[in-house]
Formats: sequence, C-alpha cells, structure tokens
Amino acid sequence: MKKLLLSALMAATALFAPAQQAIWGVLPFLSPEVNPDNSVTFRFSAPDAKSVRVTGDFLPSVPTTTPFGSFDAPGQAELVKNADGLWEYTSPVLSPELYSYSFIVDGLRMPDPSNVFQIRDTSSITNVFIVPGDYADLFRVTDVPHGTVSKVWYPSPTLGMNRRMTVYTPAGYEKGDRSYPVFYLLHGMGGDENAWSELGRATQILDNMIARGDVEPMIVVMTNGNVDMEGAPGETSAGFTPPTTQLPHTMDGNFELHFPDVVKFVDDNYRTIPDKAHRAIAGLSMGGFHSMHISKQYPDMFDFIGLFSAAILPREGADSPVYADLDGKLARQFADAPALYWIAIGDKDFLYDANKDYRALLDSRGYPYEYRESPDGHIWKNWRIYLTEFLPRLFKNK
Amino acid sequence: MKKLLLSALMAATALFAPAQQAIWGVLPFLSPEVNPDNSVTFRFSAPDAKSVRVTGDFLPSVPTTTPFGSFDAPGQAELVKNADGLWEYTSPVLSPELYSYSFIVDGLRMPDPSNVFQIRDTSSITNVFIVPGDYADLFRVTDVPHGTVSKVWYPSPTLGMNRRMTVYTPAGYEKGDRSYPVFYLLHGMGGDENAWSELGRATQILDNMIARGDVEPMIVVMTNGNVDMEGAPGETSAGFTPPTTQLPHTMDGNFELHFPDVVKFVDDNYRTIPDKAHRAIAGLSMGGFHSMHISKQYPDMFDFIGLFSAAILPREGADSPVYADLDGKLARQFADAPALYWIAIGDKDFLYDANKDYRALLDSRGYPYEYRESPDGHIWKNWRIYLTEFLPRLFKNK
Repeated sequence: MKKLLLSALMAATALFAPAQQAIWGVLPFLSPEVNPDNSVTFRFSAPDAKSVRVTGDFLPSVPTTTPFGSFDAPGQAELVKNADGLWEYTSPVLSPELYSYSFIVDGLRMPDPSNVFQIRDTSSITNVFIVPGDYADLFRVTDVPHGTVSKVWYPSPTLGMNRRMTVYTPAGYEKGDRSYPVFYLLHGMGGDENAWSELGRATQILDNMIARGDVEPMIVVMTNGNVDMEGAPGETSAGFTPPTTQLPHTMDGNFELHFPDVVKFVDDNYRTIPDKAHRAIAGLSMGGFHSMHISKQYPDMFDFIGLFSAAILPREGADSPVYADLDGKLARQFADAPALYWIAIGDKDFLYDANKDYRALLDSRGYPYEYRESPDGHIWKNWRIYLTEFLPRLFKNK
Repeated sequence: MKKLLLSALMAATALFAPAQQAIWGVLPFLSPEVNPDNSVTFRFSAPDAKSVRVTGDFLPSVPTTTPFGSFDAPGQAELVKNADGLWEYTSPVLSPELYSYSFIVDGLRMPDPSNVFQIRDTSSITNVFIVPGDYADLFRVTDVPHGTVSKVWYPSPTLGMNRRMTVYTPAGYEKGDRSYPVFYLLHGMGGDENAWSELGRATQILDNMIARGDVEPMIVVMTNGNVDMEGAPGETSAGFTPPTTQLPHTMDGNFELHFPDVVKFVDDNYRTIPDKAHRAIAGLSMGGFHSMHISKQYPDMFDFIGLFSAAILPREGADSPVYADLDGKLARQFADAPALYWIAIGDKDFLYDANKDYRALLDSRGYPYEYRESPDGHIWKNWRIYLTEFLPRLFKNK
C-alpha cells in the first residue's frame, strides 16, 4: 500500500515524460560529473542529434568579433557518442572554481537537462558546477552557522518608489541584541539585487569566512542599481517582462543620489552601528562606478570602499550634480581619508586603462589607496576572488 | 564615449553569443506573448529543426500510461514555420492562470530561450507565464506593500541538524513592535522549502490579499518536509546533487516529531502570538498528510488546519508513534475542536477516495470540518486556489 501510494504521488508529480526518470530518482546517468582528479564529464542523451557541443568558461576562451567590438568568448568542445549511444565529453583537469556551461545541440543552445542547477545572468541562463578546493570551497554550502538571506522592500522618497533588495544578516542576528557594521555590495550592468547572492556566491562566502573567524559578522545589503526598476526581472509589477542590460538611468546619478534612502532604511530597520567607521561600500563594474561616486558624494558615510573592475569614467560633463567637481569631492573625501580605498582589476580587463588613469589621478593628489591586480578580465571569477580578499579587511584597523 | 563604454560593458557581459541579442536589449521576438484576448503566442528560432512542439499545462491533458500506472500528461501542440522562418504557435484563449511549458525540438525537450522565467519542480525545470485576470491577478507582483521573504536556518535538536526554511513576514514587520499569528505551510512530495513561494506564488498571494484587507497580516513559515535533507537541492552541504522525489524518511513520522522544534524556533525568534488560537497549519499532498498528523499529535498547537489534496493514509501499522492510535488522537484533537478543519480536493484527484474515506471517519465520530471540492486533479492550480480560499479564514471567528 505504501509503495503504491508513493508511486501514484510520484506519477502525479511527474508532469513531463522526459523528466520522469529523474523524478523517480532513477537517474540514468550523471551530468556533469566532477571526477576525483577534478576533470569533469558531461553527458547528454540525444540519439538523433548530429552534433552536441559544450560551451562554458571552463574552456579556453576564443577571440570573437561582434558589431560592438572584439572580446573573448568561451570555447566549445565536441561531445562524442559512446558505446551506449550517449554523448560524452571529459574536460582536462580543472582548477577549483564555480563554472558555467551550456550545450549546443545541432546548433541550438540549451541547458543540460540532467543538471537543475542554473543561474540567470541578465537574459542568459547557464548551468553551473563547482570544482572544489582552494577558494572555491568558500562557494560551497558547508555545515557552519548560516546567515539569513532576505528579499526586502524599502521606500525611496528620492525616487518615489518602493524597491527590492537582498539583505544578509549573520548567523545569530535574530536572537541577539548586538549591533553590526553594514557592507553595501553593488552589482554590475545587467545585474540586479540577486546577482551577488547567486553568481557571486556572497552568501556562502560570508557564512564560511565568518565561521572561520576571518571576517567580522556583518550585515550585507545588496541593492538594485537600475533606478528604472523596482527589482529584478519577474519580481516587480512589470511582470514577466524580458530583462535587458540596456536600461536607461543606470549611470545618470540617480542611483547615487538615492543611496541615503537605502542607508536610512537599513539603519532604521536593522541593528546597525550607524557611523562611517562601520559602513563599507563596494561594487563590480558599474557597481564600482557607483561605489566611487557615492562614497565621494557622501564623504562621511563610508570608511571602506572597494572598486572591483570599476567602470571608472570621470563624467565631468554629465548632467547629474553627482559627476560634477570630481577634484573638489575627492579632496573632501580624502581630507579624512577612508580606512581602506581598495582598487582591484584584472590585467586583461577592458577597463584596465581607465583604472590606471584613475590611479594616476589619485597618485598625483597623494590620496592613499591599495591596489590589487589579478590575472584575467572582466569576469565573475575575479569578482568572487576580490570579495574574499576585501571582506577580511573590513571594520578592522581603526 | 558613453556609448562606447556601454557597448564594451555589454559585450563583456555577453558570455554566450546566442544570448547577445537579448542581452543587448534588441529582442528579435517575444515568446511567450500573452495577446490582448488572452491567447498566447509561442515563438522559436531554429532554422534547421524538423519539428518544434510546445507542451504544457495550458493544453488539454492526454491519458498516458507508465510502468507506474496511468495518469494525465500535458498535451502537445505543433509550432509552424512562419514567413520569416520563425516557428510559431498561438494557443486558444486561456483562462487566467499561472501556466508552465517547455519546447520539444526534434524530440528533445528544452526551455524557451526567449523566456528567462523558469521554475524548478523537483528535477523538472519549466518556463512559466501568467494569463492575467480573476484569481491569477493574486499571483502577480503588484504595487502594494511587500512582505519580506527570508531563507532562515533553524536548529532541530530532535533531528540533530540545522535546517533551512522560508519565512514570510508581512509588510511593516521590521519596523513595528506588533506580534503576529503564524501559518505553517507545507509542501508535497518532491518539493522543498522553496515550493510554496515559487510554484505556489504564496508571497504574491499574501502581499495582495493582505493589501486588499482580505487576509490578516501574519507570519508564514514554509519548512522542508524531507528530514534527510538540510534544505532544498543545491542549498545544503550535499552540494549540487541531483534532486529526487524518492527520498527516504519523508513519511516515517520524524518530520511530524521534529515540528515542535520549528514552532519553538519561530516563537523564540519572531514576534509571534504563541498560542493555539494564533497558529495555523496546512499542506498539499504529503504536506496535507503531515498537517493532519502533526495537528493531532500536538492537539494544543494549531487551531486552523488545512488538508489540500492530502495524502491521507491512516498508517496504523507504521513504526512511528505518530501513526499509532489514530482514533484516540483524533478524539483528543476534537475534544477541543479546531476553529477550522478544512479539507479540499479535486474531483479528479487520485487521492479522492482516500479523502472520502477519511471524511467518513470524521463524520462517523461527529467531528466538525469543512469540505471544499474543486474540479481537476492533483495539480498546483488547485493548491494555489485552495491557498487563496483558506487564508481569509485564518485567525478569525474566535
């Protein structure tokens, strides 16, 4: 009787025939399989397909030319039909990392149907896997005390709207009465308030590094930098409208000008230590641009500033008052210099020269900062690494 | 200069060539497109494909036989190549609802690459869309005050592990000092702590119904009913292991026996009204089974009980003390009868007869309950409808 009921429950749950084998727990094969030597095997069942390829950031990238210029695109590898008629490919040994991939079947890109672990990056959805070891172990959920991750709506009087953000509170927050410092962590162009907790693995990194004692317990606030949107695609009253990176008003000064609304909401609704010494701000790419401008627009707000592959662009000519008087604002910010002004970029980043120019400007004025140069370009791998390096520096040395 | 930078940022973000058009905001076509008359058009670009079909719960279901028995599977419809070489299909006019679908391209099931809105149900990932109107408007994010949705870890001394759950706190919770009633909302077999907030649209339903004044502001706690797991697939120290419904220990009494750990954690960490009159419990399928057994195991805990398509199964013979002495436990539970004992099921549900037998048992003892019979079977559509009907009944009439 029990078995019959279970079967019936499962049959009723299995809406789609191709998923039934998986849903009944009888997985015909694993894909991807991270092998003991850290090579990875991909498998795909498509008896009638003529060609199956895998593409992803674990393969050497190849230069690609588009109407917008040349950039490095992920490489591709051919799967080969094995004796059982299953398409298969085993990668070389891979370094520890979170990787993304997709299949290309007879020219059509599609996810790996054996892998339900996917991440949306703007309008791309890719499968993900983790090759363990080294800093990639920080990306894994481990058996340590876990913080709480909340999707929270805050009012912005400046923008005249309610907006969605992600808030991480460290393990023990709910029960205690302790107050915490706050780190504001901003996404790049095309991202949203989900980007750092999903592609950035910020939740896992924080849980693991706080548990190791390497990072101060802190509140982390991940905002949405697109001021035309209430929140991430699908999470707003705009409904299921397709996401796009070509949003207006992402770098027009209004995100920067509304930021005190965010800080006020957080200080009003969470147990924070509401002063400069206990506030940090950092962001990747466009978020680095935002962090640079917010921190000089409100020089008494943040003592720890991180520019990760920042889209540095002085914008003296832009309309917003935020971008006017760069020199004067930097002078005010560095008159009481931040405890940490941290600039990081990859040596292949297309923003490398812009960052070099910005460092030269800071040097010429004698403003103190720290500089970290990594290999590679404008990619999430670097931003996750920068986060693991920036976090231990926060709210110390004062 | 601005245009150049934006282009470069976007190019660098666009990892995968096939996604570039979308990522640059130049959508070549929409899919799915909900037309003004509530028909829906699906579009797909695959110049070399021989056949493209769409399958989903918006199409009439077809009886399907499997080794586990017969059940109704979603139908399929053919897309036809239009003059532009694009595959296209327009559905009949659809009733307001949240629908799921996938494409089948030359026999291979795949998601709609134009639609990033997907929901995972155990090991199936399907695209979703909403046809607006009627109760489906409750599933939409609207411009009303929004509650906070948190992923929270709680300790279970009974199970000897930390476990993940989803907690909804109503708009205004953070700032106020008011205490709230608590509704425990349980998923079915193969689901997890994400099921009700994703497939169930519980967050949107609560926001909208509370804003309309139809539902009391309340805390809603969505647990994970699989006691072998810390949390949903990919969210635990088991890593990215494929999900399966064939989990052991889902209906062996241990979930029920650990439930006081959940209630204690919630009462200790949230501003609750910690008494029977201000606690409700309901669940779908296996979660209805859990709700039935938990509420009679702890008769002083819940005053509002909902069995949605419950997997009723007396299990007198099972090992757990939870399933022993059904008669005695029901007698104790109904000695101080719950304010509401609500049983709902579809007239085509394979659990219809089991529920009928259970109602006959309650009738024979004179235990009061309310009964709601709906069309259709064991499907999410019914569970979302039951939720919208059950919520307004909670924490009233006492």
